[in-house]
Amino acid sequence: MSSKPTIAAVDWGTTRLRVWLLDEAGAVVDERRSDEGLLTAQHKGFAPILDRHLKDMGAPGDLPAIVCGMAGARQGWIEAPYVEVPSSLSDILGAAVPVPGAGRDVRIVPGLAQRNPRTPDVMRGEETQLAGVAAEVGSGSHLVCMPGTHCKWVGVDDGTVSGFGTWPTGEMFSVFAQHSILRHSLGEKPAPVAPDNAVFQEWCREALADGDIGARLFGIRAAGLLNGLGQADAAAALSGLLIGAEIASATRRFGKRDTPVVLVGSGPLGALYAEALKLGGLAVRLADADKAVLSGLVAAARRNGMLVEG
Amino acid sequence: MSSKPTIAAVDWGTTRLRVWLLDEAGAVVDERRSDEGLLTAQHKGFAPILDRHLKDMGAPGDLPAIVCGMAGARQGWIEAPYVEVPSSLSDILGAAVPVPGAGRDVRIVPGLAQRNPRTPDVMRGEETQLAGVAAEVGSGSHLVCMPGTHCKWVGVDDGTVSGFGTWPTGEMFSVFAQHSILRHSLGEKPAPVAPDNAVFQEWCREALADGDIGARLFGIRAAGLLNGLGQADAAAALSGLLIGAEIASATRRFGKRDTPVVLVGSGPLGALYAEALKLGGLAVRLADADKAVLSGLVAAARRNGMLVEG
Repeated sequence: MSSKPTIAAVDWGTTRLRVWLLDEAGAVVDERRSDEGLLTAQHKGFAPILDRHLKDMGAPGDLPAIVCGMAGARQGWIEAPYVEVPSSLSDILGAAVPVPGAGRDVRIVPGLAQRNPRTPDVMRGEETQLAGVAAEVGSGSHLVCMPGTHCKWVGVDDGTVSGFGTWPTGEMFSVFAQHSILRHSLGEKPAPVAPDNAVFQEWCREALADGDIGARLFGIRAAGLLNGLGQADAAAALSGLLIGAEIASATRRFGKRDTPVVLVGSGPLGALYAEALKLGGLAVRLADADKAVLSGLVAAARRNGMLVEG
Repeated sequence: MSSKPTIAAVDWGTTRLRVWLLDEAGAVVDERRSDEGLLTAQHKGFAPILDRHLKDMGAPGDLPAIVCGMAGARQGWIEAPYVEVPSSLSDILGAAVPVPGAGRDVRIVPGLAQRNPRTPDVMRGEETQLAGVAAEVGSGSHLVCMPGTHCKWVGVDDGTVSGFGTWPTGEMFSVFAQHSILRHSLGEKPAPVAPDNAVFQEWCREALADGDIGARLFGIRAAGLLNGLGQADAAAALSGLLIGAEIASATRRFGKRDTPVVLVGSGPLGALYAEALKLGGLAVRLADADKAVLSGLVAAARRNGMLVEG
């Protein structure tokens, strides 16, 4: 360790755990990743897992911790009740819930709920990432896209979350690839898709035009039977179709903004979304997902008086 | 048996087999159902299965048979190559392919292919049902909806199949219910959905407006967490969402006709589609699915000179 830690920042998701040690300026002193997500912690206990990681990292036994993610779900460590939108990101971070009897000062950032009966929705974890992104992009009206298993789109207006929606695009890809008739088209292990794949772009462009998934899914199978579409291109077609339809649907709901879409993603999936947004005629501003969650956790620690304002 | 059979009519699907004995007027003399579909026949052989059923029914060993369905697939008894649309139903039935060495005169009705690169599609089995339906509804321009695992919509204009599309709505319901996060919402065994269920109607109406599936799927989960949507209503929501989106999408592709939508379905699924079409402001004409396939097989037998014209 190069410097004395002041606080631990923890992103505790369903299947993953990330822990950072931060100094008093919020800079990273040490970090580690583990697969002891919610599903593991429900059996082993949250406190023992966190205690062990912090001890292994040489942190003092009374080091405070700021936590985001599924640890705050009803079935998590302690429930951090949803904050309803619209709500300012500052108020959301400020509503972090202390965990009684944790042996140290642990607070969990709440998730968000949208109780609108026509578009009910929830998020947990992404609100912290979002706070990091919003600080980076500043004031004004922004549409933020956060790809993943359950991709979130969020309207952020001058630091307030005005509304959001979930498109389960990653999950759809996976269930269609594994459990539908398309498993014959994509093969046992779907090939990775590159953003410059012409089939990806073609299916994406079509789906961007009307957001229609149901009309085209079986077409992937038929294109294999009739036109010899191979397994790798079938995966590209499914990916282009689902991502294109998602972008059409989300921009229809939230409208287009004067500002570029803020894309919180990195790696291959981020690159596919960047290409698809470009095909949809949308300007894109990239934000790093890992950096965003860390900077959101630092902001949450400050907002709750666990770190002095930077 | 009340009368001497002249021909056997056979609907040989992926998982089911139906055999009728018909007299010289095309009237049913005897019938039976079995679960020896394509998947079983690939192992046991097609001829032995058909021979045994016909023998058990007391039919002569040289009784001819007209067959439709997956028995004509590449991986079936013998491949009956797809007929390309547009094509008249009379020509489609007339393209039945003889099975060499079957020990009796067996002919298999071909499936249909649509090679349009933007909407590639195939069907096998439904073309025969469609011929039965088309004979019933007569000339004019009709849009035919055939619900099922892979629901088919077909444009039939004066006895010619002008185009068709597949919406895998039944399959989507099943993979989302069993393999997505919605399995927590719907429970282990999704409840049957009634057409007068208010949640079914509400989600159907919303989806009819824009055909959007991706924007709403996760809302079923969120409505459970936030608004206490129960398991039975979650199944109703998913069903309404998928059927409503399908109708929006199919009517967008084919346009609305002056004639009612011809709904080839019976039982609970047919009732859901009838309600959904009504909610979409579409007039509906019902056609019985079982009767349709039988009358299509009779028409195919006549068209191929296996029965005298009725």
